[in-house]
Amino acid sequence: MDKDLILLGHGSGGKLSHQLLDELIIPTLSGVSVAGQNDAAVVEHNGQRLAFTTDSYVVDPIFFPGGNIGTLAVNGTVNDLAMMGARPLFMSVGLILEEGMSRRELAAILASMREAADGAGIAIVTGDTKVVPRGKADRLFINTSGVGVVENGVEINGCKARVGDRVIINGTIGDHGIAVLAAREGLELSTDIESDCAALNGLVAELLKEGDALRVLRDPTRGGVATTLKEIAIQSGVTVTLREESLPLKNGVKGVCSILGLDPLYVANEGKLLAIVAPERADAALDRMCQHPLGRDAAIIGEVTGASDGRVQLETAVGGMRGVEMLAGEQLPRIC
Amino acid sequence: MDKDLILLGHGSGGKLSHQLLDELIIPTLSGVSVAGQNDAAVVEHNGQRLAFTTDSYVVDPIFFPGGNIGTLAVNGTVNDLAMMGARPLFMSVGLILEEGMSRRELAAILASMREAADGAGIAIVTGDTKVVPRGKADRLFINTSGVGVVENGVEINGCKARVGDRVIINGTIGDHGIAVLAAREGLELSTDIESDCAALNGLVAELLKEGDALRVLRDPTRGGVATTLKEIAIQSGVTVTLREESLPLKNGVKGVCSILGLDPLYVANEGKLLAIVAPERADAALDRMCQHPLGRDAAIIGEVTGASDGRVQLETAVGGMRGVEMLAGEQLPRIC
Repeated sequence: MDKDLILLGHGSGGKLSHQLLDELIIPTLSGVSVAGQNDAAVVEHNGQRLAFTTDSYVVDPIFFPGGNIGTLAVNGTVNDLAMMGARPLFMSVGLILEEGMSRRELAAILASMREAADGAGIAIVTGDTKVVPRGKADRLFINTSGVGVVENGVEINGCKARVGDRVIINGTIGDHGIAVLAAREGLELSTDIESDCAALNGLVAELLKEGDALRVLRDPTRGGVATTLKEIAIQSGVTVTLREESLPLKNGVKGVCSILGLDPLYVANEGKLLAIVAPERADAALDRMCQHPLGRDAAIIGEVTGASDGRVQLETAVGGMRGVEMLAGEQLPRIC
Repeated sequence: MDKDLILLGHGSGGKLSHQLLDELIIPTLSGVSVAGQNDAAVVEHNGQRLAFTTDSYVVDPIFFPGGNIGTLAVNGTVNDLAMMGARPLFMSVGLILEEGMSRRELAAILASMREAADGAGIAIVTGDTKVVPRGKADRLFINTSGVGVVENGVEINGCKARVGDRVIINGTIGDHGIAVLAAREGLELSTDIESDCAALNGLVAELLKEGDALRVLRDPTRGGVATTLKEIAIQSGVTVTLREESLPLKNGVKGVCSILGLDPLYVANEGKLLAIVAPERADAALDRMCQHPLGRDAAIIGEVTGASDGRVQLETAVGGMRGVEMLAGEQLPRIC
């Protein structure tokens, strides 16, 4: 393997991605060595804290059950802001179009973006459009960047998990990844699996009412629940123990994963969040989630069980315990 | 021509770009019909005005005399903020990498970005990296989005040109476009033409000292000086008259343009700005420019000569007058 080449796995959100980020991209661009990355940067300006985030979307195919690249691009950036406890304010849209792309498809995607932005209460205020020759891109890539405001008193951070805290998820895992995979490969599934793509800022607004008891929020997108929890465990210096039996999982997703040999813990989600909550408020936070349309299948899936250099372990249904690592390589390329 | 297809010209920055923006993208995404677009959005938040802008960079080749895609991506976004009179604060970097891209080249580009950001005094605070399979992108696309602050009293806008105002440019035109074209085509030029790629916020800070006399700032990138002036003329409802003899132009650029049949008025610049300045302060503004390293070849190149629906005309060297339109079609694809 030529070490000079960029591999697909460098975009997986897993181990290779983290290596590229930690060794090359972050130190070079920011001039600092950053131990843990949050979903958005929080920048102080004139006594106010602004959250700022960017994501490029290269999902293949661009239309899939439950959404399209446009809904993904809007909701993804809204969610990255929300995961810092920020209220989304405004966003940008950067389009890279391949020559020959259908204008009708573009119009449909833009309409979805508008609808998603209106739904999330974020304004699209600026944009850019480039076109590259046929064969130099794949129909359409979208970048969205967003700005939000972090209100006084809100302190959500990946480094705040403490021993005893509970891990809560707002619903079933793996829906997005399997929906996109099925659409890409033309799998005829007996069940209708749809992407969970959704804006989570409304749900987060509910959770923020828990105040200091709400320690960490993060959306398990690329790399799935496993990779995201591993990131948090490392940032906080703790061990997280998951209970396999508690993981909400649709039968259809379970079935496809078992046929294809995929572990749903590593499959991407686009409308899910992991909340780490102080033990005494975990049930209350779970209740808040369950009362929200995007949290009806919420569950407490694990606990912070000790201090460590960032271990994640899974207590299996039969009572065994196995270590959980970050996604290695590339399980499902171009999932978002 | 199938009207449903996206054409290269839709990314030119010229007439087709404006049609796509005005007919489809802006009305759909923003829900409003916008008569004229500035380089960045200015959003009011908590009594403060923030400028916000995004651009994707798809230049081919990614390295060229005078810069690379990374310097372009940083300076371009800094300049879009500066053109609204904003002081750049922070920016994001979104990378879309093609599988198989050289990691060494990526490292060189990132180092250039850092250097450019440090030079412009803007912090890179957040980012994202995606990888797509070989053949689905062209080595590297970069999106940068930036946030700046517009200080009280600063009111720069494309709609503010008035009859009598002078048009000033800070130096020679067409350098960037010709440098990229020569690098792409492997032209052996007798002269060394380099991209003018530069951050203009320092120069703008000088010009802002002119206060209200400084009406409009805009950087003539894609579509060149002609298209940019046409945009301003339409936004302000005025006629702009350029004097061909006054246009600063390097002999090398002039030579390549005349051989290839290109009009330098339509060739892209990446370190130039057009300033529209009240007549009584035009000489003072010109002096400020000439004293700045990025304005040594500055010149007054024209004047706002009347009210209209947005005409631009060129007084030729022999005294004739010809109309100047926006770039039609695509002169030089992937110039930024």
